[in-house]
Amino acid sequence: MRTVDWVDGRVRLIDQRALPWNFATVDYDDYRLLAQAVTEMVVRGAPAIGAAGAYGMALAARQAVGETARAMLPFIQQAAQTLIDARPTAVNLRWGVQAVLNTALTNADAPVAEFQQRLLNHAQQIADDDVRINQTMGAHGQTLIQDGITVLHHCNTGALAAVDWGTALGVVRSAHEAGKTFHVLLDETRPRLQGARLSAWELEQWGVSYDILPDTAAGHYMARGEINIVLVGADRVAANGDFANKIGTYQIAIMANYHGIPFYCVAPTSTYDAHAASGQDIPIEQRDPAEVTTPYGLELVPAHFKARNPAFDVTPHTLVTGYVTELGILTPPFTFLNS
Amino acid sequence: MRTVDWVDGRVRLIDQRALPWNFATVDYDDYRLLAQAVTEMVVRGAPAIGAAGAYGMALAARQAVGETARAMLPFIQQAAQTLIDARPTAVNLRWGVQAVLNTALTNADAPVAEFQQRLLNHAQQIADDDVRINQTMGAHGQTLIQDGITVLHHCNTGALAAVDWGTALGVVRSAHEAGKTFHVLLDETRPRLQGARLSAWELEQWGVSYDILPDTAAGHYMARGEINIVLVGADRVAANGDFANKIGTYQIAIMANYHGIPFYCVAPTSTYDAHAASGQDIPIEQRDPAEVTTPYGLELVPAHFKARNPAFDVTPHTLVTGYVTELGILTPPFTFLNS
Repeated sequence: MRTVDWVDGRVRLIDQRALPWNFATVDYDDYRLLAQAVTEMVVRGAPAIGAAGAYGMALAARQAVGETARAMLPFIQQAAQTLIDARPTAVNLRWGVQAVLNTALTNADAPVAEFQQRLLNHAQQIADDDVRINQTMGAHGQTLIQDGITVLHHCNTGALAAVDWGTALGVVRSAHEAGKTFHVLLDETRPRLQGARLSAWELEQWGVSYDILPDTAAGHYMARGEINIVLVGADRVAANGDFANKIGTYQIAIMANYHGIPFYCVAPTSTYDAHAASGQDIPIEQRDPAEVTTPYGLELVPAHFKARNPAFDVTPHTLVTGYVTELGILTPPFTFLNS
Repeated sequence: MRTVDWVDGRVRLIDQRALPWNFATVDYDDYRLLAQAVTEMVVRGAPAIGAAGAYGMALAARQAVGETARAMLPFIQQAAQTLIDARPTAVNLRWGVQAVLNTALTNADAPVAEFQQRLLNHAQQIADDDVRINQTMGAHGQTLIQDGITVLHHCNTGALAAVDWGTALGVVRSAHEAGKTFHVLLDETRPRLQGARLSAWELEQWGVSYDILPDTAAGHYMARGEINIVLVGADRVAANGDFANKIGTYQIAIMANYHGIPFYCVAPTSTYDAHAASGQDIPIEQRDPAEVTTPYGLELVPAHFKARNPAFDVTPHTLVTGYVTELGILTPPFTFLNS
């Protein structure tokens, strides 16, 4: 099933906080609750929250009250802002919401039922496109994986981070389905452990050989020559190639550079932001320190101990070997941003 | 109280697995159980396990059966090997055990009670020296800390890692007691979280300003110019300056180098190994992957998920700004190794 889907007039999410223990879904019929679910990371991953934002707009169009579609626009515009504000760093969320908002603005003279259907159709198309785009990206990226190598991966960028398939782990999946045999080292990715909880769960499902690493250990294996390539996702890529991704990505990029290991950013073009000239233009979300001290309610240390919890960091383009997209494996400047 | 002490004919350890929740001690009257406690990290930290090993030899001298001290030597030599084997990386353990073993070998003709007392006296002297040496090291090292700076620290190297005072955190303590005001960022140090559990607990006690960082975040703060110096301990320093320390140290050294941030190794000369020419000669302990998946019984992920758990890594001397010892702040070659 899909990570984000539309079922019987509601948005259905796989509850990623319950994995790897329980596979559960939650349905939303209110865009405000869906926005809250994005903030609380019931769903996470840049492409996944992009699709969730788009579906949230389809929900809002059903919640809006008005004799005409045009009369419903203020409500829908407010909903767009609420959804965009749910998380600040990944540009896909804004991209998905604004795409459907544009459809609302250009269809404001349609009959209400048709207006609502057109918004839903657009959200559905964004979700369908996401799967296809990820598979195309996987086909390009899997050429980087040779038999017998070891891939280092950070956070979760699999099917759970997208509508389906995935970005960096989508490349891993494509290589696996192409019959290649290789090993994946998964940074556990503190504080929320998306690597240990979600990526390991996915690789168990797919039957791909893996080991979880504490976030302290990747450098050790790089020094021993046991890591051949690094694949990570992105939450926003600036025009110059600087990109924001899960906290810890920047450290790995520095280490890969030091050891001469190829380092690739895998993200669809919907993750690229022409309005961000460089990484300095990307806002970094600060989250609750309780995610560090007591993640998922597990008291690692007393809750009153002080901690910091930046959710993302910025990796400069100078540390990136290449950018895997649905258009191929690119390097800056990204000409598609001008088209 | 001391982390390792001799009380009423037994070795008393602060149980570091119970911190920061409970302050508890455990007493040992059998060197074998003490060796097991070292393996299980009831006590940890290179200087602390050096003292524990020395006291373990004093215990063995009381457990040995024989009409004469010389007749007891085979038992004591076997005990020395058992204690040394308890953990492979930190050279202090071997150093402390062998120092007391040498006393046994040179006092084998003493009456049994006096023989036993001489071994205990030597262990006691090693423990007393450790405190004095750490304080001297702190006095040298605290010159590196200026008002208003931020120090990055990895693992735990405070009073709990030594008999008292500490190495890298001993420098922090000396600077604090000298009236300097500064901030400390503590890597949580997965998998066993010595930074978040032990170092934060010590800094709370001392009243030093701190924040715990996930192991993924130090690079982010380095890039923002918010880290001025890195202070870490060591488990073994090779003759060329390469050194083994808690897993994750190497990564920080690479990052500090990339950002031009001074990086200091703080360890007494008992941590230096003249027999290790370089880091390649230092054995790296591999520990149970369950420490990664289910640390302290907290199920972060299902126990059957696969993980790796190297306990240490090696930082090359090329990444080290200086070595704080009780002899001062040094750079290789270390002439004291030849004396």
